[in-house]
Amino acid sequence: MKLLEDRIRKDGLIKEGNILKVDAFLNHQMDVELFDEMGKEFRRLFADRPINKILTIEASGIGIACVVAQSFHVPVVFAKKAKSLNIDGEVFTSKVESFTHKRVYDIIVSKKYLSPDDHVLVIDDFLANGCAVMGLIELINASGATLEGVGIAIEKGFQSGGAMIREKGIHLESLAIVESMDWTTGSIEFRSQE
Amino acid sequence: MKLLEDRIRKDGLIKEGNILKVDAFLNHQMDVELFDEMGKEFRRLFADRPINKILTIEASGIGIACVVAQSFHVPVVFAKKAKSLNIDGEVFTSKVESFTHKRVYDIIVSKKYLSPDDHVLVIDDFLANGCAVMGLIELINASGATLEGVGIAIEKGFQSGGAMIREKGIHLESLAIVESMDWTTGSIEFRSQE
Repeated sequence: MKLLEDRIRKDGLIKEGNILKVDAFLNHQMDVELFDEMGKEFRRLFADRPINKILTIEASGIGIACVVAQSFHVPVVFAKKAKSLNIDGEVFTSKVESFTHKRVYDIIVSKKYLSPDDHVLVIDDFLANGCAVMGLIELINASGATLEGVGIAIEKGFQSGGAMIREKGIHLESLAIVESMDWTTGSIEFRSQE
Repeated sequence: MKLLEDRIRKDGLIKEGNILKVDAFLNHQMDVELFDEMGKEFRRLFADRPINKILTIEASGIGIACVVAQSFHVPVVFAKKAKSLNIDGEVFTSKVESFTHKRVYDIIVSKKYLSPDDHVLVIDDFLANGCAVMGLIELINASGATLEGVGIAIEKGFQSGGAMIREKGIHLESLAIVESMDWTTGSIEFRSQE
């Protein structure tokens, strides 16, 4: 998606250690008008899928998921990263290893909000090693719901998550795939997708 | 806001200990079309304010804030609940005591995303003792930005936060104010606002 690639070139910051900071518009300060354009693009890319629910993970996936959900006219469910006192009853749970925070945590979704009737699109801001997405897919599988696809804002194409998910036959769409980046020069290359 | 009050009566669950669970539509599963109506109502209620940014706090405030922000055509910034490895540079910080999780945590916003040029509307899903909102207001004050108002989905009118914030002369609008509720009968009373 050229709009997103252009925005990454303009406002993204490349840091040592293959870190791409997009907190100016994606995951700390959030440009909701950009999110709306992303939602329309996901709607186009998943037009043939009978999606009735969007699943994401707190925290930075929630904003994108909610705006994208407006294009699909469906509700969002977000997986929580630990047991909250306000979640009662039974939950689906899986484990996720965070690349950003260097730790493993449990994610949970109430059994009330995922069921065999659901056709779910997973939405998240970043795809790197794929652990968060795989954790969400485990929740969907445990519930008996149908995974219709995965929509990602920015995929780090040089990490293993995208290939792993595509090899499973899952319909994965990343609006921008970073092929390589160089923090010393600030240059960034995107994978051609059209 | 009658639409929200009706939804709380229909899908909210009252639990012992003055707990109101609205995770069917507000803070676990999220009805983004309801959020859009809430956004239009906040736009009406704060129509006279020169708002150029919305500030919320992770996690459950983010979805509402992003959809509400579309009605204002402004970006959202969300305060994070601990230091992330991906936040560099300087941050504004304050402390919040969580009623839900029974602990005190730090909240942070990058200094890049709040400045004296900003006119900020605070948005959150719940107002009870007011600690989260006061923490956000501390961040705004530290940055030199102007607080234009506070918009809340559901206020627990029998707790102290709403009165405390209104006594400071802050423009606070809560779309539904729960005056009382009874978990034994399931009855709930809202404060009249029109």
